[in-house]
Amino acid sequence: MSETFDCVIVGGGPGGLTAAIYAIRAGLKTVIVEKLGVGGQIALSDIIENYPGFPSLSGGELMKHFEEHAVGLGAEIRYTDVTAIVADGDRRIVKTSSGDLAAKAVIVTTGAEPKKLGFAGETEFTGRGVSTCATCDGPFYKKKPVAVIGGGDTAVKEAIYLSKLCSEVHVVHRRDRFRAEKVLQERIGARENVTVHWSHQPVEVLGDDAGVTGLRIKNVDGGAVTDLSVWGVFVFVGIRPNTGFVECEKDGQGFIVTDENMMTSLPGVFAAGDCRVTPLRQVATAVGDAAIAAVKAEEYVSELEGRAYEGAK
Amino acid sequence: MSETFDCVIVGGGPGGLTAAIYAIRAGLKTVIVEKLGVGGQIALSDIIENYPGFPSLSGGELMKHFEEHAVGLGAEIRYTDVTAIVADGDRRIVKTSSGDLAAKAVIVTTGAEPKKLGFAGETEFTGRGVSTCATCDGPFYKKKPVAVIGGGDTAVKEAIYLSKLCSEVHVVHRRDRFRAEKVLQERIGARENVTVHWSHQPVEVLGDDAGVTGLRIKNVDGGAVTDLSVWGVFVFVGIRPNTGFVECEKDGQGFIVTDENMMTSLPGVFAAGDCRVTPLRQVATAVGDAAIAAVKAEEYVSELEGRAYEGAK
Repeated sequence: MSETFDCVIVGGGPGGLTAAIYAIRAGLKTVIVEKLGVGGQIALSDIIENYPGFPSLSGGELMKHFEEHAVGLGAEIRYTDVTAIVADGDRRIVKTSSGDLAAKAVIVTTGAEPKKLGFAGETEFTGRGVSTCATCDGPFYKKKPVAVIGGGDTAVKEAIYLSKLCSEVHVVHRRDRFRAEKVLQERIGARENVTVHWSHQPVEVLGDDAGVTGLRIKNVDGGAVTDLSVWGVFVFVGIRPNTGFVECEKDGQGFIVTDENMMTSLPGVFAAGDCRVTPLRQVATAVGDAAIAAVKAEEYVSELEGRAYEGAK
Repeated sequence: MSETFDCVIVGGGPGGLTAAIYAIRAGLKTVIVEKLGVGGQIALSDIIENYPGFPSLSGGELMKHFEEHAVGLGAEIRYTDVTAIVADGDRRIVKTSSGDLAAKAVIVTTGAEPKKLGFAGETEFTGRGVSTCATCDGPFYKKKPVAVIGGGDTAVKEAIYLSKLCSEVHVVHRRDRFRAEKVLQERIGARENVTVHWSHQPVEVLGDDAGVTGLRIKNVDGGAVTDLSVWGVFVFVGIRPNTGFVECEKDGQGFIVTDENMMTSLPGVFAAGDCRVTPLRQVATAVGDAAIAAVKAEEYVSELEGRAYEGAK
């Protein structure tokens, strides 16, 4: 027989830790299941300056505060892999590599990972010069030159955004035209401090212990190499949500569709943060989503218990 | 001629300060307009334990952190009353008691105030025994007796919620039946630790410097007085949003309707936090809303500038 909880939270990033804070305070018997280590993507960031209340700290430090907060309230974190969530009557069974957990409600906060291109230095400099979020990290390069890699809507939109903060924006795109919508193409064409390097791809981040100093790119046709002098490299080649283990309504890219109460198409299963369809992916929004998900999960569990009581009369 | 900003934020609570952090980092020329003092409703709370990252502090302290964060990035706060927001072509004019402010985008974060009944001690003990939020403050009365005042959906739902955390819940209702929906009435009837005091109203909070020790109630018919021994008093008699100054789509109670990007029915005017139609009103949700509102306001301003450029060609 599997262990039973009121609420199983899948994922120990900002969303999962917030959901635990709310669920435990609401009196739900709760467990967080995390694959690797708590903190999620943001723990990879050297510096975060837009989570209100903490003017400037590392993502790892911020997540340490979140973890201490949740654990201080009694949160239990189990380290294992979730392979599936299945319905069994009113129960939701969270299948893990170390056995099944039965839950009245489940909150999925598994986040999303930016796709990588695999060029030299891309991973080593992530969080300290290589970024995948202009809203988060753009302001660190005020009046400095940066590079943007990609040619879709997000890449072009973020390049326009960065062109207002940074001295120069080098857009590196492997094709000879953008995929982005026409109006964005026109707008980026009008930005005087944007240079597009068509038919180029990144080869190597140039830098040292102090951070990034440049980006080496090469022409995909001839192979000619150019070194760009930039302080930051923004990679926008798509993001991939970690949602393969749950069967519910998703968009074309795999992001989970929820209602305004953060409930998925599978009753009793909620989603919060980067893994869901949302207009913005930030610690701030994961926190807001997760508070709603946990409060609504408590209401769902309460209704479930009410129905069980009424059914037994 | 009125002063011109990219973004005017109306209200200096958690939502307004968060919107400022995001708007300023995005390079928008921004001002916060606040009527009284920064912090909003949460500044009245003696203790808040569910804003992730800060396990336990006063609402005033938390808002001090938010204010320092926003001001550290360069946020300007003006103390004056906003009387109206009107459209003037692409501009939005924020009319205040001390003159007009022109803006490309406006973010409304004016919050909502719980209605008061006006009984003795209701205001004096607010934030230290008298509460209007079970999610926020219920856990402080774990295994302790509390009173709930009201008879609508919210009052009954929150009484059920509190009955799972607290030893005893005394519901004080001035009528002889609940207005709450039938299923909630059945559910509260099934909670063994809930006592309903029909046809009663609160007279006085009993307590001292250490907090609340009881609630005096009286029968609305005979006037007979009863003293309830409780540690907390939860008042759920409605909340009122501060939205009278802006004409846009609202619900029956005056809460502002937004789309998923937090934009109201008036283009360029966004809303975030307690003042909008939302499933939950918490610091955590105000922060999430406001991050979205500010990022979308920046995109709106960017599009506006793009159109102006294209129009000038």
